[in-house]
Amino acid sequence: MRLITLTTDFGLEDAYVGVMKGVILGINPAASIVDLCHAIPPQDVRAAAFLLHTAWPYFPPGTIHVVVVDPGVGSQRRAIAVATEAATFLAPDNGVLSYVLAEVKEAQAVHLTNQRYWLPQVSATFHGRDIFAPVAAHLSLGVPLTDLGEPLPLGELVTFPLPRPARQSNGTWLGHVVHVDHFGNLVTDLEAGAIGDAQSVVIEVGGQRIVGVRHTYREGVPGEPMALIGSSGRLEIAVPGGHAARWLQAQIGDQVRLEN
Amino acid sequence: MRLITLTTDFGLEDAYVGVMKGVILGINPAASIVDLCHAIPPQDVRAAAFLLHTAWPYFPPGTIHVVVVDPGVGSQRRAIAVATEAATFLAPDNGVLSYVLAEVKEAQAVHLTNQRYWLPQVSATFHGRDIFAPVAAHLSLGVPLTDLGEPLPLGELVTFPLPRPARQSNGTWLGHVVHVDHFGNLVTDLEAGAIGDAQSVVIEVGGQRIVGVRHTYREGVPGEPMALIGSSGRLEIAVPGGHAARWLQAQIGDQVRLEN
Amino acid sequence: MRLITLTTDFGLEDAYVGVMKGVILGINPAASIVDLCHAIPPQDVRAAAFLLHTAWPYFPPGTIHVVVVDPGVGSQRRAIAVATEAATFLAPDNGVLSYVLAEVKEAQAVHLTNQRYWLPQVSATFHGRDIFAPVAAHLSLGVPLTDLGEPLPLGELVTFPLPRPARQSNGTWLGHVVHVDHFGNLVTDLEAGAIGDAQSVVIEVGGQRIVGVRHTYREGVPGEPMALIGSSGRLEIAVPGGHAARWLQAQIGDQVRLEN
Repeated sequence: MRLITLTTDFGLEDAYVGVMKGVILGINPAASIVDLCHAIPPQDVRAAAFLLHTAWPYFPPGTIHVVVVDPGVGSQRRAIAVATEAATFLAPDNGVLSYVLAEVKEAQAVHLTNQRYWLPQVSATFHGRDIFAPVAAHLSLGVPLTDLGEPLPLGELVTFPLPRPARQSNGTWLGHVVHVDHFGNLVTDLEAGAIGDAQSVVIEVGGQRIVGVRHTYREGVPGEPMALIGSSGRLEIAVPGGHAARWLQAQIGDQVRLEN
Repeated sequence: MRLITLTTDFGLEDAYVGVMKGVILGINPAASIVDLCHAIPPQDVRAAAFLLHTAWPYFPPGTIHVVVVDPGVGSQRRAIAVATEAATFLAPDNGVLSYVLAEVKEAQAVHLTNQRYWLPQVSATFHGRDIFAPVAAHLSLGVPLTDLGEPLPLGELVTFPLPRPARQSNGTWLGHVVHVDHFGNLVTDLEAGAIGDAQSVVIEVGGQRIVGVRHTYREGVPGEPMALIGSSGRLEIAVPGGHAARWLQAQIGDQVRLEN
Repeated sequence: MRLITLTTDFGLEDAYVGVMKGVILGINPAASIVDLCHAIPPQDVRAAAFLLHTAWPYFPPGTIHVVVVDPGVGSQRRAIAVATEAATFLAPDNGVLSYVLAEVKEAQAVHLTNQRYWLPQVSATFHGRDIFAPVAAHLSLGVPLTDLGEPLPLGELVTFPLPRPARQSNGTWLGHVVHVDHFGNLVTDLEAGAIGDAQSVVIEVGGQRIVGVRHTYREGVPGEPMALIGSSGRLEIAVPGGHAARWLQAQIGDQVRLEN
């Protein structure tokens, strides 16, 4: 219960992330803090939700995941904690836990209202420092979830509809680009199970047809788009030695057709 | 006394920061190291001074803050340690501790001259690795400040004049943009106390008039400049859902008028 | 044996690096993890090899260095561990350890084949998460190298020819730019020992002649190219207050002449 991860849209040009760590380590000097990502596009709650979804299962049970992508900071939006058997999540109640909530069967949620676990002075613009960091630190010291505020029914939490690929009557799947990674690879919401014959399946994206799904980047032709199953178990489009998003002029939300 | 922060202009493309951590952990394997910021613009001593000023108070007592923005590395400029009741600072004597020195009442300073606490070989260009990192590690192990070199009177340390807003005879405040953050928000040197009536105060920056100071970003109009009190207790100009610095073509040093 | 460094081309926009840390800390919660660099240009094995070469000697004995720049991930390329008296290296067998192997006299290498120390499910595209991270964690817990797989003769490991400066019959050295750092400084493969008289030596790079090698940036003229011995003991070209690579339109691989 001493591992804490941080996911924010704060970037690394300012000291915002460092300051959160100072607050945490001032309360629990033994906390171990891991940066999950601080390059979420500003205020992009959906991007943060997806990134968290792909990453948190690789952390040990009891890890505390703090997500601060918070366009409504200081307004009436709630700050919440959601605890499952596997992990605890601290975040604004703005949908950033949509994937987590769709996956878990049992969870407890609380509205973070107990100011005893906050910094003494709370700004209107930086709850990452003033509320989420100190609450995470106290949780990591063993403070029970129920001490942090009032229980919230899961059904009252804000969620957004998850992008889901649709199956057409002719058997074709229509999916979407859900993430573009550092290498320019297009991560889609089409899961490995949707692919029939890996040799003959046809993928259409950005006006290009790709035939077949490979296992590794090396099986592709350098400089040409290829399809493979990425590390999150989803169909990915890559350009070996290149940048698929630029090559295909593709972006998040673009449609990806898969014909078996 | 085992928490060490690092602030540099080294960026993250090289291994310079990692190497400093290797040196520290080689001397004190139990040290806990936090990155405050490594994106200080190259050689920008003033930017580093301001960032340190806003961040260090959030760290626990006894934290050791290492600041390596050091255009004079290898020249006659001194390497110094300044210890207060709250923290210890290691830095080149080039003004980067100007805010810290203006705030503290009591402090002890030493000129880092005791080579026993340095790496055996000292380069002319990387004192972060060869002097500051090993000295920080030894300090974190309990080496007394006075062992690190000769005492220095505080009055002999290099400082630069801090930017201060000026009050005109008609009551108007003239302040400045002192920082542009990752979100494009303009942080000014105008403190919350300078604002009279939050509803009617008028702010002029980049040729734009902004009436009133809000509490949260949500109270602004998306895409339009607004004013609020930021997380460091200073007046900030933001564009909700946008980037104030680009919108206003504003930069550090620009004048900000505040009429009550 | 509990310090682990990470060097990758993953960037910091995704959660790939954070996920590797989650896997490591799930196996060894006491591991101490240092980021060496995650900004290696995508698939640039040579850049990673050079960076590792300049950084690893500053880490304490027994440090485990994990390098994941791995264009051949999932193909027949081997995953290897190389242990010396000073450190252990985990990497794909693609030449990224070329400098390390050129320097060490004695080392043991193994082909990482023992799946007992991997994640239960291994993807074809993210061995950093599925193989290298868990193997590093198990090593840090004391698992012997020989348990990780079959021994490999050092001579069978993939290496590339190291860039070496050539000495002409007239005594001139022909070297190369081997790295451009965050400040724009050109790091060359010309070592300090190649320089005769520091006052009169002539360096030619990017069509410019530079006379003399200085000790510190301050001894140069602001805005003008200068030469000095950098922190890795090699000749560097810098522009004080500027950016040498842009000033000289120079890049990695460019020739640098040194006439004594």
